[in-house]
Order: sequence, then structure tokens, then C-alpha cells
Amino acid sequence: MKPNPQKQQAFRHIQKAIGYTFSDSTLLERALTHRSYSAYNNERLEFIGDSILNYTIARMLFDHYPKLPEGRLSRMRANLVNQNTLADIATKLDLGNALFLGQGELKSGGFRRPSILADAMEAIFAAISFDADFAAAEKTIRKLFADRVASADTTELNKDAKTLLQETLQAHRLALPKYRIEEQRGEGSEAEFLMACDLGELGHITHAKANSRRAAEQAAAKEALTWLQAKLAADKPKN
Amino acid sequence: MKPNPQKQQAFRHIQKAIGYTFSDSTLLERALTHRSYSAYNNERLEFIGDSILNYTIARMLFDHYPKLPEGRLSRMRANLVNQNTLADIATKLDLGNALFLGQGELKSGGFRRPSILADAMEAIFAAISFDADFAAAEKTIRKLFADRVASADTTELNKDAKTLLQETLQAHRLALPKYRIEEQRGEGSEAEFLMACDLGELGHITHAKANSRRAAEQAAAKEALTWLQAKLAADKPKN
Repeated sequence: MKPNPQKQQAFRHIQKAIGYTFSDSTLLERALTHRSYSAYNNERLEFIGDSILNYTIARMLFDHYPKLPEGRLSRMRANLVNQNTLADIATKLDLGNALFLGQGELKSGGFRRPSILADAMEAIFAAISFDADFAAAEKTIRKLFADRVASADTTELNKDAKTLLQETLQAHRLALPKYRIEEQRGEGSEAEFLMACDLGELGHITHAKANSRRAAEQAAAKEALTWLQAKLAADKPKN
Repeated sequence: MKPNPQKQQAFRHIQKAIGYTFSDSTLLERALTHRSYSAYNNERLEFIGDSILNYTIARMLFDHYPKLPEGRLSRMRANLVNQNTLADIATKLDLGNALFLGQGELKSGGFRRPSILADAMEAIFAAISFDADFAAAEKTIRKLFADRVASADTTELNKDAKTLLQETLQAHRLALPKYRIEEQRGEGSEAEFLMACDLGELGHITHAKANSRRAAEQAAAKEALTWLQAKLAADKPKN
């Protein structure tokens, strides 16, 4: 495997972008080798890289969100560690230009395929751990994922507050909330709903207005969740 | 939380058995605290411990089986890292005696429940990583799982040779095997089948006899798999 000048240029670009320079560049080459190109490919490295990534993101979330329950952290990680996110990061590093692909994959645009990009990205994390050590791989991942981890909670909160509220209550063995319409005005695009989210035994009720019953429920749930998290944080000893 | 003398004894026993002594024993206590006992429980630790365990076993398998494809390693890990295995290890450490459980769980035998034992076991790995560092947790896991990793391949081989043969061939883009009856004698418990497993383009055919068609196929597949692994190992550059 003798990388041509274009490949060499792509290798330099990746290493600069991730802030890590390989002592043994054949490790980087192997991480970028798809199984369509050679039996000596990145599949085994990807297996290791995936687990380094999972640990590092778990630890980042644990430290960044000291008050969130395990279920939330676990879902946040699933949102962060998936093919789309990894392919997105790989695309920003121009990883596609550096890949070694078989003729078939080359012709069918394999260098843009999310699964191929994501696997190579994970394999690079493993390659770093072999080239240096686990800590070097962890450091690279922390750098690449810092912004995403910092905004993971907001992203999740915007998703489905009712589900999150329910899960948080269940995790603390508390009764599920009751939703009820307090007021309904107008129809169609003019409609306005005022919903209440009643936390029952906790003695807290939140209200929210929106153009649909569903949106008003979600907004009331989000209010309730914010209140609940503050309460749980206050009740709980420091992590 | 003031552990009584029995608990203290159980803590000493665990630490001796795993070969790790905590500087901060409250970390061990937390790892052993089920959510039924306190809001300050082991759930977040378990999230971290699970990922340390997954990485460590991945790396052990990677090193121990330099010639096995990723798919095999992944299945072997799934067999090693599961509730049953972890509960088994926890039982050998008498972990149940050390657990902090709520009254309900205590009465219903929670100290024997595999899910509770497995979660506490994983939480202990995380607790070690916080008490010392990642490497200390990895070392403890390596010690506890050494024998199981060394025998993981045999365990898997005995499971279903036909599936493994098929997967190994597919991973190397080789044609699937053809099975055929070469001979059949007797009936019922006296029956004897001679099956052939034909690897086609590879030019290798194995044979095996057994009392059922299925058993003879599996045995022929196992022979073929052994041959194929040796061939692939000889063809492939060193890991």
C-alpha cells in the first residue's frame, strides 16, 4: 500500500484537523482501509474504536451533567454516538478523500457513504490508541465532541419533554403526571389550548398555551421537567 | 450511611478477591447502593462501568484472537458481557452480602437478583476508575475475565459451527458451503448420517458422521471452519 501524493495530503489534513500526528502512519492507513480494498482492513480497529468512543462520551456526559439520571445520559449518548454524527464529523475532516476503497465502492460513491465514513472515524480512534495510548484517543474524541456534548441536553430537551418527564419521574419512583385542558378557544389555525401538567403528590402544577393540544402538553411538560430537575438537584447529595 | 461490621467484612472480602483496595471507601459503598436504598445510588456509576467493561473485553479479545474477524469478536463479547456472566462473577465475590437495598428488595431476595448483582459489579469498575484511574479499572476487569476470554472462542465454536462458517466465508466474500448427504444407514436411534461440507471455489471438502443429519452437518462445518481459519491466517499479513 503506497499512498499517492493526494492521499498523503489528505492524511496530513486529517491529522492537523484532529490535532494528532501518527508516529506509525500505517496505523492511520489501516484505519482508512475499507474491506472492499483489502483483507487487511479497518474492521477490527472499528470494533475497538467504537468502545473507546462509547466510554469517552459516557464519561464526558457524566462529568458535564452531574445531576442527570443514567437513563438520560444513556439516551444522550445514543444521540451523539451514531452513524450520522460520526459521518458528519468525518465529512468535516474530508475523510472521504483519504479512504482506500475497492473499485466497486469507488464507482458507487463509497467515499460519501455514511456507514463507511463512520466506521473509518471509529477505526481512527482505535489507531490512535495503538499508536500512542488510550488517553491520546480519549483526548482526540473529547476535542471532536466537546460542542456536541455541551449542547446534548438542550437537543434532547427539545425533543419530547413528556417522555423525559415521565422517565425522570419513574426513575425516582414518583407518580406519573396528569394532563388536563384548562381552556380551549377558537378553531383550526386560530385554536388555542391551555393545558395543565399536574405532578400530583409533588404538589406542583405547570401551565402552557399553544395552538394544539399536543404542543401545549409538551410545553407544560417542559416547564414541569425544569422544575423537577431543580428540585431533585436540591434534594440530592453532590455527585 | 454507616456500614455495620458485617458489611465492612463483606467490603474487605470483595476488595481482597478483586485485588483492589479503595482509597475512598465511599466510592465502593456507592457502587453497592441500589436505587431502592437511596437516591444517591449506583445507577450513574453503572453507566460508566458498563463502557469500561465493554472496552476492556473488546481489547482483550482483539489481542487474544489476532486472526478473528470483527463479527466474531463482537459476538464473543456479547457472550461475555451480559447479566448472567456478571452476576456469576458477583456471586463468587459474595457481592450480595455487601449490597445496600431498600426494605422491599431485601425482603424479596434482591441480593440474589442477577440484574442487581450485575449492575453493582459494573458500578464497581467505574468506582475503581474514579478512585484511581481508568487503567486500574481495566486491570481489575482483565483479572476477573482472563479465563473466560481465553475460552471464549471454544465456547462459541461449540455453539453453531454452520453459522460461524457461513459468517466467516461472508466476511471474506467467499461462496457459501454446500452440504450433502453422502451416506445414510439405519433408522431412529440406530441411524447414521455421513455428511459432506463442500467449500466450492476453495477446493476443500470435509466429511463427518453422526446420528442425525443436523449433528453431522455441524460436525462437518466445524472441520471446515478449522481448516478455513488456518488458511485465512496463513494468507493474511500479521495483525
